[in-house]
Amino acid sequence: MPESILEQFRPLYYPNAVVVVGASSNPEKIGAFALRAVISSNFPGHIYPVHAGGAEQIMGLKAYPSIQAIPETCVEMFIFAIPAEQILQSMDTAIAKGCRAAVILTAGFKEIGGEGLALEAELKAKAQAGGVKVIGPNSLGLFAAYGNLNASFVPGLSECFKGRGKAAFVSQSGGVGNTLLSRCLEDNMEIHSFTCLGNRLNVEFADLVEYFTADTRVRAIGLFIEGTDDGRRFYTTARRCSQQKPVVVFGTGYSDTARQAARSHTGSMASSEALYRAAFHQAGLVQAESVDEMVDATKVLSMCPPPPADKVAIITHSAGPSIIMVDILEGSGVRLAELSPETKEELCRTSVPAFGSAANPVDLTGMGGFDKRLYVEAMRTLVKDPEVGVIITLYTTMFEYSLSFPIPEFARIARESGKPTIVAFVTPFSFNKELYAWEAEGIPVFTSPERAARAAVNLVRYYRGRARLASLTDQSGEPPVRGPEPPGQAKLADLVAAAAAPARREGRQLLLEHEVKDLLAAMGVKVARGRLATSAAEAVAAARETGWPVAMKIVSPQVIHKSDAGGVRLNISDEEAVRQAYDDIMAAVAENFPRADLRGVLVQPMARPGLEVIIGTLNDPQFGPAAMFGLGGVWVETMSDVSFRLLPLTRQEAREMVAEIKGYPLLAGHRGRPAVDLEALEELILTVSRLVTAGEGIGQLDLNPVILYPDGYSVVDARLSLS
Amino acid sequence: MPESILEQFRPLYYPNAVVVVGASSNPEKIGAFALRAVISSNFPGHIYPVHAGGAEQIMGLKAYPSIQAIPETCVEMFIFAIPAEQILQSMDTAIAKGCRAAVILTAGFKEIGGEGLALEAELKAKAQAGGVKVIGPNSLGLFAAYGNLNASFVPGLSECFKGRGKAAFVSQSGGVGNTLLSRCLEDNMEIHSFTCLGNRLNVEFADLVEYFTADTRVRAIGLFIEGTDDGRRFYTTARRCSQQKPVVVFGTGYSDTARQAARSHTGSMASSEALYRAAFHQAGLVQAESVDEMVDATKVLSMCPPPPADKVAIITHSAGPSIIMVDILEGSGVRLAELSPETKEELCRTSVPAFGSAANPVDLTGMGGFDKRLYVEAMRTLVKDPEVGVIITLYTTMFEYSLSFPIPEFARIARESGKPTIVAFVTPFSFNKELYAWEAEGIPVFTSPERAARAAVNLVRYYRGRARLASLTDQSGEPPVRGPEPPGQAKLADLVAAAAAPARREGRQLLLEHEVKDLLAAMGVKVARGRLATSAAEAVAAARETGWPVAMKIVSPQVIHKSDAGGVRLNISDEEAVRQAYDDIMAAVAENFPRADLRGVLVQPMARPGLEVIIGTLNDPQFGPAAMFGLGGVWVETMSDVSFRLLPLTRQEAREMVAEIKGYPLLAGHRGRPAVDLEALEELILTVSRLVTAGEGIGQLDLNPVILYPDGYSVVDARLSLS
Repeated sequence: MPESILEQFRPLYYPNAVVVVGASSNPEKIGAFALRAVISSNFPGHIYPVHAGGAEQIMGLKAYPSIQAIPETCVEMFIFAIPAEQILQSMDTAIAKGCRAAVILTAGFKEIGGEGLALEAELKAKAQAGGVKVIGPNSLGLFAAYGNLNASFVPGLSECFKGRGKAAFVSQSGGVGNTLLSRCLEDNMEIHSFTCLGNRLNVEFADLVEYFTADTRVRAIGLFIEGTDDGRRFYTTARRCSQQKPVVVFGTGYSDTARQAARSHTGSMASSEALYRAAFHQAGLVQAESVDEMVDATKVLSMCPPPPADKVAIITHSAGPSIIMVDILEGSGVRLAELSPETKEELCRTSVPAFGSAANPVDLTGMGGFDKRLYVEAMRTLVKDPEVGVIITLYTTMFEYSLSFPIPEFARIARESGKPTIVAFVTPFSFNKELYAWEAEGIPVFTSPERAARAAVNLVRYYRGRARLASLTDQSGEPPVRGPEPPGQAKLADLVAAAAAPARREGRQLLLEHEVKDLLAAMGVKVARGRLATSAAEAVAAARETGWPVAMKIVSPQVIHKSDAGGVRLNISDEEAVRQAYDDIMAAVAENFPRADLRGVLVQPMARPGLEVIIGTLNDPQFGPAAMFGLGGVWVETMSDVSFRLLPLTRQEAREMVAEIKGYPLLAGHRGRPAVDLEALEELILTVSRLVTAGEGIGQLDLNPVILYPDGYSVVDARLSLS
Repeated sequence: MPESILEQFRPLYYPNAVVVVGASSNPEKIGAFALRAVISSNFPGHIYPVHAGGAEQIMGLKAYPSIQAIPETCVEMFIFAIPAEQILQSMDTAIAKGCRAAVILTAGFKEIGGEGLALEAELKAKAQAGGVKVIGPNSLGLFAAYGNLNASFVPGLSECFKGRGKAAFVSQSGGVGNTLLSRCLEDNMEIHSFTCLGNRLNVEFADLVEYFTADTRVRAIGLFIEGTDDGRRFYTTARRCSQQKPVVVFGTGYSDTARQAARSHTGSMASSEALYRAAFHQAGLVQAESVDEMVDATKVLSMCPPPPADKVAIITHSAGPSIIMVDILEGSGVRLAELSPETKEELCRTSVPAFGSAANPVDLTGMGGFDKRLYVEAMRTLVKDPEVGVIITLYTTMFEYSLSFPIPEFARIARESGKPTIVAFVTPFSFNKELYAWEAEGIPVFTSPERAARAAVNLVRYYRGRARLASLTDQSGEPPVRGPEPPGQAKLADLVAAAAAPARREGRQLLLEHEVKDLLAAMGVKVARGRLATSAAEAVAAARETGWPVAMKIVSPQVIHKSDAGGVRLNISDEEAVRQAYDDIMAAVAENFPRADLRGVLVQPMARPGLEVIIGTLNDPQFGPAAMFGLGGVWVETMSDVSFRLLPLTRQEAREMVAEIKGYPLLAGHRGRPAVDLEALEELILTVSRLVTAGEGIGQLDLNPVILYPDGYSVVDARLSLS
């Protein structure tokens, strides 16, 4: 039986004992920081400093000249604070000593390129063979509140995080780790753990998402990602895990210069923003746009129960800041609850003063600032309204008469209601004590209306995404709504292999247009199929058969941009013109591409006018197969109005992909125009998804343009490249 | 000679003496807070508590039973903390006592509607007649650091803001005021003043922007606006002032629900987001998207010199957070400086370690964390590079070895370079002392990389906007690039009056299509002019003259939506069809609008195909005349890809209006298509601007569609309503 995920990673967060390799008594050395960190964390097991120089004692602990000299037979965790070139040998002896988890603080590996790359590869092989999970190299280390373990070079973490929370943070970068931990500290937020992945030798984001999902002490996971080496595995894992536990992500490195910076510093090549965002969305992750937002969302999700409804109510005595919150909520698609007449009536009776407002936001006016019991009364009423799923309490202090909020009573009502309650307590930090009192009651509190509103948005978004993912799963085996049953995997693979056979034989990567269309037609796709003519006479015969007017296009493995080569004629409506066009095309292409192999001309009926769209796929090195959908034509190129999804897709994902482009109203029927055949379009996208993920073989498939009609569609042109 | 703006508002911020009307010794009363506030502010003049109850002394000051009883003959400032219904009478006696400035803390006026509205109107008349500048009613009050005046009900402000800064903040809302002051306090930021406008009886944003622009102690102005009663005056004032001093604005109340909330609470009707944003942009204001961003931008602009170039350099030892900054900078159109080879060579020699980066961001690696003198050396080199206009220094602390940054030396290099320098010091607040040390040296510091980057963006944006505004001014009298000299104001007014005469005579608000087109043609605009036919025979004659094919449209004052009424026929290419169309149109419209006055049918040549655009204007109740530009047709309606500007426009503003829509590449020539005639389009927009602002008369003018060609354009349809 394979080791469970919990047991695989346990030695990182709950080891039996710790060795600090390179421990030092020189307070300026990293080996001193590392040892101080472990000591300060109140770690329950043995701590063994290893000091090659032969010191007898360091920081009051007996030191050892080598790993071998340690008396304990099996030590699970090793923290390495020695130069890169000594790590390989040291890892060998560590493995012999029982090492199952390592934190490598040292830099000088992959991130410096050249010999660093080789060193890291060798180290990785060793760690894999020895069954060691490695954090780093080039890492700040990790901090585990429940394991009482500070395995970093920041002793101060132990001082700062004395409590135990439910949020697990993972950051690639130490600097961003420091940024997010600073934010946690300002808010007096407790954490479950912080892990700085550094170079990610053999522990990836996907691993820790999976581990923390299994760890019942964790209620929410927050990630800072600059890029991952295995986007597809991350996607698959995160999609599975986010159905059980909230995962919040802030990604960066999207701008061109940022990408260069990311490349030079972390050695990871960030993939395009669109694919990352599509993957995060499909996986049901909450996407934050800043470190603060990531921390705030993780905090709220780790502290609050799931909302029983997804509308928000606000109680305040500060109208101005509540308007800022409403802007953020509504601008993010989160609606304010419409309070029932009974609720309003009760609010007026119990808490809302004469010139206040019992509509949402509930405004207690300046009276609420003086008498904060009004907040408690309003809360008592609001939690009963079934429309209200989330409550935000916003109050500002006038610097002095603020310590009177009956926090325990308010918090009790919130807890008993089972409704997520978030507090925006707008105050300078001199009122920290009140902040802490809220958090001690389990109510997340923020010092700005913006942060509270955004946290509420992310809370709602997570549970919406989770419901959406659950509905996708139910649907996975659904048959097509219309048309024939799609072929099974084996049949599909056969079809692709057959279509690709001529190209493979001739060493072509691109299929010819009619070869692609034959494959599509065999899948039940409606293509403007055309016939290959190898003479003017054949072209005329083909046109007669296919119906007037026709389009004619060169067929040649060497000619990819047919129009530019003079290889396309459109709207030809008589036989003489067909003959002429055939000769013109062959002559023009022969002149432009003297060495091209001209197989003839494809004659196909002109498509009747409709709405042009593009369906394209790519095979991303990190994320694997993905698809793009967008409106076609010059207008939309300019607007870059497209949507992306990783493949394969469920029907609902295909539907969302279509619905999320800005031009969707054009498809759905706009100002009296009829809608296009959306079901057929979804089926077409699903077919593309099936084809591209059918197995080996397809590198890229583009249907461009596809013309949509109220009663179907026609694929006018298609390209397919083999991988 | 009229009183200077400085003297008009001086009594609000530097009064000779202060009366607190409604002063109280009951610590729960607002009159006690108000009196304590003035006393705590170390105000240099006399303070007179007025207590109708006849107390002899309050808080150690001699109290007076009435305003009349005050011995001093002239007291400039009165703070009112009495019930709304007593204010009118009290204001009379205050004015008799020399009152020139008042702060009304009391609520119960405009914001409660009904009698509150009437009360406020009466109060306003009184204040205006008496020459009193009023802050409030329904205001938190004001705080003036240089005048040593805390005229609010928040005594704590005096404790918190002991220094004197260069940023003047103005907020409509007290709650948002509290929010922004909290942010200032967290950062230990000093301020020039804070003013809460409340109901804005007779002191508006425009007034204070003008006053603070004149006050040399202010270097930057920060505004929180929920809506203003006189958008046009604000726009004009802000546009003038922002050329001298940075003005930062955060506006809100844009979402629908937020607008309702704003209406019910402040009595001000927020205009549409698009117009606000256009006005702010045209006026050269820095637009923030949150309270924090507004405070941060105001801080940076109040502390930093103008950047000599608009590219940014970053020095750091924390690669991860620097990538976040680069994302924000580049995503906001602010570029990183490309360092010269000399700079890079010197950086490598003096400060960048072996595995660091001398490219921008300059990466000192972990070495920079240990030895912060490397930052000083890198700074010394960077400031010499002429490409570098702004420097951001980003460093994170590992919680303990951070107090070693040689701040004074670094700051001296920054100051002597004359280049704005911003510090992102990422740390929990336990390191406040280091934060304060930076600010004491005049260097703005932020605790998150995001905030520092956004502040740098806003610094660059302000000076870009200022340069832009300066260039507009130079251009104001510029003649048209092509075509005839536009008519002067008087001539224009005559033309409009003449065109409107028939409509005025008949009591119509809408001009008929051919009347609008005649007016446009008289201005030199190219219209698809058409001829009015009152019989089928006249229609045929008109078509013959105008050229085939033709469009035919009903002309009737009652028929606004001509197509819906059956009143339009397009693409008619022979005489018989014209005759038939004439009869069909008259019959169809007569059936649909039995009581309509049918004046005949307009026959005009069909426009040749081109790119459809819309130019529309509106007369906004707050901002006055404004224009919209966008691509026409169904595509762009869906995308709502339009730009707005307040009128009148300079040529460059017309150009920007065209260039800022997303579909601009279609106009400018895309993938080998020719560009449209952009000069002619700009001239057309300018003509619309001239016409609509020519004087009385025009309510709304819409040119829809205008067809653009590579060599000109044609206005196909036009509507004009009188005001």
